[in-house]
Amino acid sequence: MQYPKAITKLIESFSKLPGIGHKTAERLAFYVISDMKDEDATKFARALVDSKRELFECSKCAFITDSNPCNICADEQRDTSILAVVESSKDVLSLEKMQSFRGRYHVLGGVLSPLDGIGPEDLGISPLIERLKNEEIEEIILALSATLEGDATSQYLARLLKETGIRITRIARGLEMGRSIDYADEVTLIRALEGRVEL
Amino acid sequence: MQYPKAITKLIESFSKLPGIGHKTAERLAFYVISDMKDEDATKFARALVDSKRELFECSKCAFITDSNPCNICADEQRDTSILAVVESSKDVLSLEKMQSFRGRYHVLGGVLSPLDGIGPEDLGISPLIERLKNEEIEEIILALSATLEGDATSQYLARLLKETGIRITRIARGLEMGRSIDYADEVTLIRALEGRVEL
Repeated sequence: MQYPKAITKLIESFSKLPGIGHKTAERLAFYVISDMKDEDATKFARALVDSKRELFECSKCAFITDSNPCNICADEQRDTSILAVVESSKDVLSLEKMQSFRGRYHVLGGVLSPLDGIGPEDLGISPLIERLKNEEIEEIILALSATLEGDATSQYLARLLKETGIRITRIARGLEMGRSIDYADEVTLIRALEGRVEL
Repeated sequence: MQYPKAITKLIESFSKLPGIGHKTAERLAFYVISDMKDEDATKFARALVDSKRELFECSKCAFITDSNPCNICADEQRDTSILAVVESSKDVLSLEKMQSFRGRYHVLGGVLSPLDGIGPEDLGISPLIERLKNEEIEEIILALSATLEGDATSQYLARLLKETGIRITRIARGLEMGRSIDYADEVTLIRALEGRVEL
């Protein structure tokens, strides 16, 4: 049996998304076909096309933007002396949701990962060093993932940036909120102990 | 901070899909923006639009199609004496994958669900009865979900179609392949016992 092309093409497109297997792609495609309003499908299609056409990386911080510099870099209410170094634009979104960080960002576009062939030259490290020459930064907060690669990248950057004399910090490691001790993994517990604070 | 509209619109569109929460929608949107090829995003957008423009329900069996009657109804190699009644077009796809069922289908478009206000008139039951008058059907296989609603719908249809004199069957219930007895739920075990066969 030959299925209508429009079905197979839609399933194929959904399958290309990360974490979406073939079964889920089928479920989503049939939802679009049978249950989604025509209007919403059109909006979805336009959002896809627009996202590729209108968005680019901010020339200053590499955050995804539709204006240059991006809204964060252009915001004069921001504290220009603090810079958070993050892995991706998505991480900027996560940190912005807290509404408590008032500095600016620098998006690396990944972390060091020798196994995947990702070295320093593949990340936005040279632009970061360039920025530090032109801006009055007093503190760089390394806000990378608590993974082997994230930690290695933090250590690499800390060593590299030491000579600038700028204060380099890293976000804390410890128990996540709501986590009970007996469910925490060993490495987390070690980090939580090491990072203990006076009460 | 105002995010670029193209980002928020894409996140919104992904959020409208079933089983996709806000976090996943963000992840997918950023994947499209940062990692998907322009070409693939364009294909995805076109697949969405085409799926709504080119597809409709087969006038005979209600399967999603781009030609009328659909490829299955039009296939002369098919056994026209057996009809499988299924809930949705997606179920047709699942059954077709086995490549062992050679009859045709009738898509109900749902199952009876009084709590959701879905009664017999909301399903493709009248078209089914109409079909039975015009086609030489010898067996109707009820291939609905093994849920309360699916079972109630099967019983409703069996009672309704009894007077046609056509043989009515329901697909078997029992242990799924690979399932060990001690992991099976009680109702499944009861059904498996009831449906035991001679060896």
